[in-house]
Amino acid sequence: DTPQTPSSGTPTLAVIPGDGIGPEVTAEALKVLEVAAPTKFEATRYDLGAERYLATGEVLPDSVLAEIREHDAILLGAVGGKPNDPNLPPGILERGLLLRLRFELDHYVNLRPSRLFPGSESPLAAPGEVDFVVVREGTEGPYTGNGGALRVGTPAEVATEVSVNTAYGVERVVRDAFARAERRPRKQLTLVHKTNVLVNAGSLWWRIFESVAAEHPDVTTDYMHIDAAMIHMTVNPSRFDVIVTDNLFGDIITDLAAAITGGIGLAASGNVNPDRTAPSMFEPVHGSAPDIAGQQKADPTAAILSTALLLDHLGHGDAAARVEEAVLADLAARAPGTTRSTSEVGDAIAARL
Amino acid sequence: DTPQTPSSGTPTLAVIPGDGIGPEVTAEALKVLEVAAPTKFEATRYDLGAERYLATGEVLPDSVLAEIREHDAILLGAVGGKPNDPNLPPGILERGLLLRLRFELDHYVNLRPSRLFPGSESPLAAPGEVDFVVVREGTEGPYTGNGGALRVGTPAEVATEVSVNTAYGVERVVRDAFARAERRPRKQLTLVHKTNVLVNAGSLWWRIFESVAAEHPDVTTDYMHIDAAMIHMTVNPSRFDVIVTDNLFGDIITDLAAAITGGIGLAASGNVNPDRTAPSMFEPVHGSAPDIAGQQKADPTAAILSTALLLDHLGHGDAAARVEEAVLADLAARAPGTTRSTSEVGDAIAARL
Ligand SMILES: CC(C)[C@H](C(=O)O)[C@@H](O)C(=O)O
Ligand SMILES: CC(C)[C@H](C(=O)O)[C@@H](O)C(=O)O
Repeated sequence: DTPQTPSSGTPTLAVIPGDGIGPEVTAEALKVLEVAAPTKFEATRYDLGAERYLATGEVLPDSVLAEIREHDAILLGAVGGKPNDPNLPPGILERGLLLRLRFELDHYVNLRPSRLFPGSESPLAAPGEVDFVVVREGTEGPYTGNGGALRVGTPAEVATEVSVNTAYGVERVVRDAFARAERRPRKQLTLVHKTNVLVNAGSLWWRIFESVAAEHPDVTTDYMHIDAAMIHMTVNPSRFDVIVTDNLFGDIITDLAAAITGGIGLAASGNVNPDRTAPSMFEPVHGSAPDIAGQQKADPTAAILSTALLLDHLGHGDAAARVEEAVLADLAARAPGTTRSTSEVGDAIAARL
Repeated sequence: DTPQTPSSGTPTLAVIPGDGIGPEVTAEALKVLEVAAPTKFEATRYDLGAERYLATGEVLPDSVLAEIREHDAILLGAVGGKPNDPNLPPGILERGLLLRLRFELDHYVNLRPSRLFPGSESPLAAPGEVDFVVVREGTEGPYTGNGGALRVGTPAEVATEVSVNTAYGVERVVRDAFARAERRPRKQLTLVHKTNVLVNAGSLWWRIFESVAAEHPDVTTDYMHIDAAMIHMTVNPSRFDVIVTDNLFGDIITDLAAAITGGIGLAASGNVNPDRTAPSMFEPVHGSAPDIAGQQKADPTAAILSTALLLDHLGHGDAAARVEEAVLADLAARAPGTTRSTSEVGDAIAARL
């Protein structure tokens, strides 16, 4: 993902507010984006998610995907219906919409920065200074939808899930992670996997990691099993700078990272196509939280920070930094014990810009 | 795993001290077992692990497995060589020895209790009372060794890992977890999986969990995605009572559980064959920690607590409780800032019995 010069025309944005708290946090993200961006965005809203699926049976029509593909970037709120809704089997929306976008638009770098901002509270007693970024592979691993089931519903049922890993897919994300590590002051990169059990995939990841490391003598590298990473992340999270890992391990470790840096309400992410052959997509790490939807209770900070990643990706690094600073200032000013509505938080951050 | 009446003869114990700190912690576990057990054990030592493999190329000869199989129980220290030893590719020992034992002896319940003992320190600022047990499936999932690699070492390499899940395998471990939940005061059981992405395996786990739940109306159940479980485990670990999950998720979550309850030096585990068709195996959750091996620096508490699980499994519930109490008393008496050698900790716990 080489730093980009902004294009000259009006950039176009596909907005997918989604389900649950998605629309609420997206509204605040757009509010902040409008104030922060040096240019106007032409935003088109796409109603996709549980509501549309339950009403029409449509998840992501090919024609809609084709339209979305023509935009410069995508902003997504959150996707997912009520838990245990019998009309909405698990995976329909996740696999059919969210993951389909990530796969079709080749979002092979799932970028998830974790920072313990001053003023935000960690559940850890002594977190130290935490500022790392997870480069999660986004188009392979156990997320490919390979596998199947046999004799479903009988005592002889067999269900498989296949993690698919290719040299092509691993090398490009590992290269991206090294490039990011190189641009950071500490220049440290940790590979997280489970090479001692998942020996086929592990060996591939390890060999590619080692060979790309040889081209980057300035980057300090180490390796950690995913289980050991749980311990380091809770006991000494400040040891991490950049982490590169597979799709599933990245999913797990970034929720832990969000938890220890003050919660999922602050964790932003970019589903990045570094080759820019299709638009990248920016979204908070949190889900649709249907239990608090429509109540103005959700924290829009993660969605707002996702617009900073979006601005940066489109070449507006200065604007991105301003959004981050505004969020930082807002966090530092949050009075413990008081609660603000979703839009009050958005207003407060926009007002600082 | 129905409570057992102890057999009348001298029980036999296969001891596999293993590598790194394995022999040191195992020595203390045996010291405590000797004092605590109401009966003498006939222990036979099996030298298996990195040293034997590097010297002879042998990991677990069939004849040794056959001998081990004839014992009443197995006590294992830790297995694993120096990181990045070119003569010891990752997985050789883990897959060939540790996992082979778990699979051949049908250890389908990998039992991992997590308790925050008074006096032991959690990295969490406000952990609350933590006392839960993870029932990790031990013979299926991504640990089966299914999968393979194609065009290894070329840019066209493809590597796969197949998670295999059967109704047979899922049902027996889910039943065991419900039975355990039923014997505990809170009677709560949480299924952890990733049903929204791993839809084949997830659906199988979910359907079996729901159908067994219908037979246990006294057990309160809930479901959590593995990523969400990371958050609950760090933000509110006291909400958990019993967790049932697959082999890989169980590996990951139990290291996190160990971390938040005072560290991997305290986490014990049982690889249990509840049908008693083969001996169960008890081991600390921690690894062989080659960096501190032979220095009497390792904490043997996890190995000692593993003997409590062993005693309980063999029908010596009272002796198991005494070991736990001795460990509890020792932990409460640990003076912060002082360090004791591995054998000093073992001596202190044995002296309390
Ligand atoms: C909703 C789900 C499919 C998704 C994932 O597993 O990637 C989410 O947990 C995330 O981390 O973005
Ligand atoms: C050493 C390794 C194979 C093992 C596992 O992954 O099960 C360990 O991490 C454990 O948790 O017992």
